[in-house]
Amino acid sequence: MKKRVTLKDVAEAVGVHVSTVSRALDPKTRHLITAEVAEQILKVSTELDYRQNAAAYSLKTNRTRTIGVVVPDITNPVFPPIIRGIEDRLAASGYVAILANTDGNRRREVSITQTFRARGVDGLIMASVERDDEAISRLSQDGLPIVTVNRQVDDPGVSSVVNDEDAGMKLILGHVAGLGHQHVANIAGPQALSTGTARLRAFEHHRDLLGLDDDPQLIAVANAFNDEEGVRCAEELLSRGVAFTAIVCSNDRLAIGATAALRRRGLSCPDDISVTGYNDMPMVDRLFPALTTIRVQQYDAGHEAADILLEMIETPPERRRRRHVVLPVDLMVRESTAAPSKTQGRARRARSAARAAMADPATMPAAE
Amino acid sequence: MKKRVTLKDVAEAVGVHVSTVSRALDPKTRHLITAEVAEQILKVSTELDYRQNAAAYSLKTNRTRTIGVVVPDITNPVFPPIIRGIEDRLAASGYVAILANTDGNRRREVSITQTFRARGVDGLIMASVERDDEAISRLSQDGLPIVTVNRQVDDPGVSSVVNDEDAGMKLILGHVAGLGHQHVANIAGPQALSTGTARLRAFEHHRDLLGLDDDPQLIAVANAFNDEEGVRCAEELLSRGVAFTAIVCSNDRLAIGATAALRRRGLSCPDDISVTGYNDMPMVDRLFPALTTIRVQQYDAGHEAADILLEMIETPPERRRRRHVVLPVDLMVRESTAAPSKTQGRARRARSAARAAMADPATMPAAE
Repeated sequence: MKKRVTLKDVAEAVGVHVSTVSRALDPKTRHLITAEVAEQILKVSTELDYRQNAAAYSLKTNRTRTIGVVVPDITNPVFPPIIRGIEDRLAASGYVAILANTDGNRRREVSITQTFRARGVDGLIMASVERDDEAISRLSQDGLPIVTVNRQVDDPGVSSVVNDEDAGMKLILGHVAGLGHQHVANIAGPQALSTGTARLRAFEHHRDLLGLDDDPQLIAVANAFNDEEGVRCAEELLSRGVAFTAIVCSNDRLAIGATAALRRRGLSCPDDISVTGYNDMPMVDRLFPALTTIRVQQYDAGHEAADILLEMIETPPERRRRRHVVLPVDLMVRESTAAPSKTQGRARRARSAARAAMADPATMPAAE
Repeated sequence: MKKRVTLKDVAEAVGVHVSTVSRALDPKTRHLITAEVAEQILKVSTELDYRQNAAAYSLKTNRTRTIGVVVPDITNPVFPPIIRGIEDRLAASGYVAILANTDGNRRREVSITQTFRARGVDGLIMASVERDDEAISRLSQDGLPIVTVNRQVDDPGVSSVVNDEDAGMKLILGHVAGLGHQHVANIAGPQALSTGTARLRAFEHHRDLLGLDDDPQLIAVANAFNDEEGVRCAEELLSRGVAFTAIVCSNDRLAIGATAALRRRGLSCPDDISVTGYNDMPMVDRLFPALTTIRVQQYDAGHEAADILLEMIETPPERRRRRHVVLPVDLMVRESTAAPSKTQGRARRARSAARAAMADPATMPAAE
């Protein structure tokens, strides 16, 4: 094994002072020296295999400049832009993110946060929290800087960056009502998640303000934000035999599932039934039909969450402020919504078709 | 500031031996003690704010159990499943990944790898490399464990996990030729990337084996793997006035751009011209038309790359083996390909339409 290389070895090899080497190796101070010298120092430090900076810095300052980022699943297209926003903000301050996926499993989340703690992360950004997440509340009360992003815990003591769910539902329902829809169904998200409850509450509020049909049979609640649950809830709504001409879905994946379920029943979107999503995740503008949805600022949410977290880390615990940032949203009108006027008859036929399908169990997919 | 809490403090608070605490805090050894005791230790260590494990471990072993993962852009849907595969494999061995995005910028890649080096990463997984990436070759020669994933550098000394590009092009061209296409265009990827050259080489090879039209005017080379370049290259192929009934694209994004360009010209896919992609990225099965493409094993590629890297890290440099793993691929036949028989006439009309458009500069989008 090679002898450990020190800052001094690098400084001697380049012919500069130790403090210059130290500045060159820290992204936060690298700009203080010329680009040429910095490049030379980085080159030599790599050649000499100098690599004790992080650990030594950590023992000296009790900081690792490492943030734990916890998401349900990075392959869900909602999360990569959030992560990108986090990383861009962290990189600007010389911090890095370590990432883990919970798959929505609470035990796994606890194990991940403990492992991150043992590694000495300076803070956590959580995109995976459920509303009643006590472990996160406790970590936050213990003084670990934590910001939730996209979702919130019920405990207002934990800082958060979320989207304006009320404004989003107001925009979607205003658009759908403006097209002339009176009987609007809702596929709500899981009620264990803040996004699920906030969007359902906003749906009911704006439905009532707009004077739309408030039959509770028009609401189906999904157990997860995925295609399969969109299919299941659309089937459930159709099978209830209550008439509707539009389905407002609590996210894009539910809308994709709902559209597929309609198609299987021989119903067309938007000719027979309009469908809306929420999130504007990548590629939904290229679906058939292109999805009308709410655009949320995923990248900005990540960037803002990292910004708040870094401020918390650099502020003594007793002087830290909790912050709740609500980001504005936009309505994206595409092809999956249309006026219902000419389709009311078809919607009634859809109801009959649903009843006919119920009579023939072979055509009914199993509910989860 | 609180006094630093030691392993001994945690051990005393729980009432176990220090070595038990040490085992509980290391994911690799946690299974050696009962789940209840481990949970109790993790709980108390969190309450006491014990967090020196990582830095102390690092100074003792000269290992940080941290891997740097470098991708062009995490918001490109190809990369999240690769990252997920990497993380799942690393987590099983108590390692974590720190992630950075290069945006395809070589200078930024160099700066990132230097920052990661200064932080003492134990190895790198690179999804961002260009073929002639000398910085990566040098780091590898210096003894830093490196594996490239999805792409390769020309230097065979750097280990890699890639997809079987030759088999992929053979499957796609076999499918297209089997439908009866004789004049098949190709939108090739950037030739600075191994995926770009390997797929172009495979296209030419199998085109010749199948006896298809080998007019070099049937090949357009993209400067990047994105929608815009797909549009530009499709426009270029149409404007050359050479007849073709199918476009084989070097990745899905190029195919999405090509399909959009055809639509703008009033040409239909697949009725007038068949289009194929490569990668089977999420959602391309829901496009209109659903894209015929090659499915690559993104998750497995990440998992395998992490596996190889961990083996390198745990092997002394002089005994390390370079490894090149080639993963099998599958053909996904969907709606964007069809027989050309009834459309040859339309393809000729397309040619005329393209010429007519050239005569009217207002309808020609600017080439990049």
